[in-house]
Amino acid sequence: MTVYLVGAGPGDADLLTLRAARLLAETQVVVHDRLVDPSVLSMVNPSAVRIDVGKSPGGVISQEDINETLIAVARTHTHVVRLKGGDPFVFGRGGEEALALRAVGVTCEVVPGVTSAFAGPLAVGIPVTHRGWSRGVTVVTGHPSSDDDNYFGRIAHRDLTLVILMGVGRRALIADQLMAGGLAQSTPVAVVEQAWTSAQRVVRGRLDELGRLNVCAPAVIVVGDVAALDVDAVMGDAASVHSR
Amino acid sequence: MTVYLVGAGPGDADLLTLRAARLLAETQVVVHDRLVDPSVLSMVNPSAVRIDVGKSPGGVISQEDINETLIAVARTHTHVVRLKGGDPFVFGRGGEEALALRAVGVTCEVVPGVTSAFAGPLAVGIPVTHRGWSRGVTVVTGHPSSDDDNYFGRIAHRDLTLVILMGVGRRALIADQLMAGGLAQSTPVAVVEQAWTSAQRVVRGRLDELGRLNVCAPAVIVVGDVAALDVDAVMGDAASVHSR
Repeated sequence: MTVYLVGAGPGDADLLTLRAARLLAETQVVVHDRLVDPSVLSMVNPSAVRIDVGKSPGGVISQEDINETLIAVARTHTHVVRLKGGDPFVFGRGGEEALALRAVGVTCEVVPGVTSAFAGPLAVGIPVTHRGWSRGVTVVTGHPSSDDDNYFGRIAHRDLTLVILMGVGRRALIADQLMAGGLAQSTPVAVVEQAWTSAQRVVRGRLDELGRLNVCAPAVIVVGDVAALDVDAVMGDAASVHSR
Repeated sequence: MTVYLVGAGPGDADLLTLRAARLLAETQVVVHDRLVDPSVLSMVNPSAVRIDVGKSPGGVISQEDINETLIAVARTHTHVVRLKGGDPFVFGRGGEEALALRAVGVTCEVVPGVTSAFAGPLAVGIPVTHRGWSRGVTVVTGHPSSDDDNYFGRIAHRDLTLVILMGVGRRALIADQLMAGGLAQSTPVAVVEQAWTSAQRVVRGRLDELGRLNVCAPAVIVVGDVAALDVDAVMGDAASVHSR
């Protein structure tokens, strides 16, 4: 019995790793999240059992229940894939699942995936780092796990791109904290909805507009100078952007 | 003429995306970096021209020369792959290459890859985010592009994991700045050498030991509580870690 904790990547099945694709094709059971794209699920062994443990906003499946489900199927099958959107160790709670499995003696192997935090911006021509524009990148969620009135203000940093996952619902509050933390009102922002799916859409603006932008979850929010970049832009635009 | 700017992932060819593997198998020319693993290069169309533009530490190939090389091969071939370690838009200068190609009318398509910044730690059982241990992750390089006496001190943040790429040579200075910036001397660190290759090795310690650790580039440095985690640990250890 082995549970493979597999990153599904950002959406498009073409961005699965070779290892992930092989594991999906061979598995007996797949336990997956709500946000895993149908194109990825189509790669699963047709005779495999599928268990959707997606936590919908009003849903009731706790992490403990997911852990128990994984342990139960691992005890009755030799090859189980736990499929998580993006990378299993970037806000996927994959570390917790791996530890829960190990704690009861179940072998667990973790397979990294293309993270939505970087591939989301890339999908609309935004490099999260770019010489002269960004010296690094910070990735957080819009729902930090502890209470803190100025959490985003404290992590605001002019030199670093900020990528916020699962932040659409709190985007006005996040923007306020970031501006209070020292980011300029005119800091570029981009919201990338459903990257690498057929429903992909990007909305760009300024930080002081973020709360009013008409956007829907799931989306990745990018804050920082690079959010104004589009390396897919046509020739003239690209040249002018480059010479900034 | 199209240049595909492709992320090669962290090392092991099994972590190429399906799209990357197909593009490599079909390409006429591959222009690659020094750090791309031989297992990945073995996936390249055997009849393709290979151009190594790896910038060795004492090397002389400038980014401008690389851009010129890409433009030249794009003008004489219909299918060119520019292969970069990890993800092309995470410190790969991929954004600059994409803009340079666009600026002269060459079509460029960017294919994200599994980033070494997250897959390196994962390879040794370190999740870069972990509930109760880390609320997010910042990725920087050890060679920030502008002079700043206290750069690392300013980005130090107790709640966030810090991943430093290309930082081995400056690790003593980085540790000093991080401690001056408020991180505890006892903050766990891990240095992951050559992740996802047969030469993979991890050295763990405390932040005040980082400068003295016997480690070699290329490596990924992880600073933060999660650097002490190992979800691949045996049962007893895992249980004790989990109940921290």
